[in-house]
Amino acid sequence: MNAKTDFAGYEVGYDIPALPGMNEADIQTPCLILDLDALERNIAKMGAYAAAHGMRHRSHGKMHKSVDVQKLQESLGGAIGVCCQKVSEAEVFARGGIQDILVSNQVRDPQKIDRLARLPKTGARILVCVDDVANVADLSAAAVRHGTELECFVEIDCGAGRCGVKTTPAVLAIAQAIDAAPNLKFTGLQAYQGAMQHMDSFEDRKAKLDAAIAQVRDAVEALTALGLEPELVSGGGTGSYYFESNSGVYNELQCGSYAFMDADYGRIKDRDGQRIDQGEWENALFILTSVMSHAKPDLAVCDAGLKAQSVDSGLPFIYGRDDVKYIKCSDEHGVIEDKDGVLRVNDKLRLVPGHCDPTCNVHDWYVGVRNGKVETVWPVSARGKGY
Amino acid sequence: MNAKTDFAGYEVGYDIPALPGMNEADIQTPCLILDLDALERNIAKMGAYAAAHGMRHRSHGKMHKSVDVQKLQESLGGAIGVCCQKVSEAEVFARGGIQDILVSNQVRDPQKIDRLARLPKTGARILVCVDDVANVADLSAAAVRHGTELECFVEIDCGAGRCGVKTTPAVLAIAQAIDAAPNLKFTGLQAYQGAMQHMDSFEDRKAKLDAAIAQVRDAVEALTALGLEPELVSGGGTGSYYFESNSGVYNELQCGSYAFMDADYGRIKDRDGQRIDQGEWENALFILTSVMSHAKPDLAVCDAGLKAQSVDSGLPFIYGRDDVKYIKCSDEHGVIEDKDGVLRVNDKLRLVPGHCDPTCNVHDWYVGVRNGKVETVWPVSARGKGY
Repeated sequence: MNAKTDFAGYEVGYDIPALPGMNEADIQTPCLILDLDALERNIAKMGAYAAAHGMRHRSHGKMHKSVDVQKLQESLGGAIGVCCQKVSEAEVFARGGIQDILVSNQVRDPQKIDRLARLPKTGARILVCVDDVANVADLSAAAVRHGTELECFVEIDCGAGRCGVKTTPAVLAIAQAIDAAPNLKFTGLQAYQGAMQHMDSFEDRKAKLDAAIAQVRDAVEALTALGLEPELVSGGGTGSYYFESNSGVYNELQCGSYAFMDADYGRIKDRDGQRIDQGEWENALFILTSVMSHAKPDLAVCDAGLKAQSVDSGLPFIYGRDDVKYIKCSDEHGVIEDKDGVLRVNDKLRLVPGHCDPTCNVHDWYVGVRNGKVETVWPVSARGKGY
Repeated sequence: MNAKTDFAGYEVGYDIPALPGMNEADIQTPCLILDLDALERNIAKMGAYAAAHGMRHRSHGKMHKSVDVQKLQESLGGAIGVCCQKVSEAEVFARGGIQDILVSNQVRDPQKIDRLARLPKTGARILVCVDDVANVADLSAAAVRHGTELECFVEIDCGAGRCGVKTTPAVLAIAQAIDAAPNLKFTGLQAYQGAMQHMDSFEDRKAKLDAAIAQVRDAVEALTALGLEPELVSGGGTGSYYFESNSGVYNELQCGSYAFMDADYGRIKDRDGQRIDQGEWENALFILTSVMSHAKPDLAVCDAGLKAQSVDSGLPFIYGRDDVKYIKCSDEHGVIEDKDGVLRVNDKLRLVPGHCDPTCNVHDWYVGVRNGKVETVWPVSARGKGY
């Protein structure tokens, strides 16, 4: 058990929003709650899909930042390990016992490279992305210094417009440099098309992924011709995993948001034009909030504002209610339109946040609930680990 | 010294971005840095203004959530105490030794009311806002139970459109109920016009505040006629404090953002049409970020994304640079337009966040710098304290 989950001396309200065994009604708000039944169904479903399609699933831990959620994804969903975006996140997962950890990002700062190169000493397999030949010597020197091996993915920019190289010759040059460098291993390709994940239309997403798959296939064929066939080709998210799984090119998925869902992902449509939060996945993550003022008859004010969530992808919606609407968010307040005056002070509501990843990152705890009871309280183990 | 600032065993990068004595170049990014010279000048300036105008200044601790910053505001800026928005924040400030604490918000949950009523036992003066007669009996019962006194402000909605009552008769009814309730004291009025603080034009802000002042004056006169003259009339923010200070009605200010500044406040104009971050206040808060990829000639990628800041009020700007521009923010990345290719991997940049309050709330530490050295590292003491 994580030291942080020994609750002796923790004061509800000051340190923690709830303790295991409490009634759901006594949880202190605002806080994150997980519907454990829905979470387990989402995780099992993605696991079954990956297994049926012969895909490894490396669940994206940057979404939940939780060793406990990751372990559930491995035990119940067959996930083979984790990916994350920061060395400090990788450190948290390694200390938590996760055995296969990809930093799906560039690591360039000398101190961060040094910390990364020490991580294989925990016994975990450690992988990292590279998009610049100049990075290879630094990674290699650090791994040599610590007597470890770092496995490297060349990162392809297949549409995200962020890190990654865009041409096959650039991929080849980096892969060859990695292959030649002491204590580094060329393991494969990182090719995540991030920019299309949130496009509403299935056909629009498919068109973007078709182009990405063609680009990645070209790189794979060229690498293979050079004798550098990738062991792993990794990518795919909640809005695209079926495309990668049926591509014949990718063999590893990196889905994250499917486990929790959020308002922005929920809006995208499946092949049949149905919202993906109405069939494909269930909302398992909520911000529990309380009404704290109702001084105007048609407006209620709740206690979840900008410090309980990120609104970068829009406002939250109120789960299971069409009679009231969250219409405005300030630092500590949410304003709720309540035209019929149905809400009362201290009523609790479940909000589905606009964007799960940065929302989880402002909270210290997940309160896991089932049948009206608090079953577990898990730390957001890598909260604030951005270094 | 706060227990959290004894750094023995803290690992730079894993636990903390820097340690006192380090060179600024060795700080791990992304993290918050405070320019201590600028911070001290801002604090001293607001203190001198409040003193010259006979105003109490109750600095808003919900912005910085830091016992250390608050203590500087008291010692250097003459602040008489703190205001904050949550009981758990008040608990942090009380444990940190702050002696005059206003929860400038409604407290309605029974457990939160109980915690609030215990707080005067720390020796601090504790004040809270009320906008509903139904709240009075609950606050009174808890104060009686604990043998304490809670001081109450009636909250007036003078334009924020959130909590608070809108009419003088409603103010009178609540004030009379407080005055009659055991262990409660009617101390005054909370009247913060939040909605106008960020309007660009000085004249537009003045028009909104003129209306608010008239509304508050009406309430003060009616209360005085009833024998309930308010001891304190509290409000005012960084975009308005000169209006309240010259109103003849208010006697307490609640400014917060002036100490750090941010991009959104910086854009508003003073009486002479000048941005307030170009003369009135200095940028003292920055997100320090590093370039981590430059795989495209005209785009650099830095390591500060949505988990290092809140973009509710727009993207950050890059301080002191007009040759490069932060143009896109995703979870862990910022995309920087670098048309002339002037940036190099590992270059460090100072970002001015769009909105300081929710940005500070995602970080665990402030790194205080002066003359290129890390002078102090302060915990964001009330980070995540939303209950």
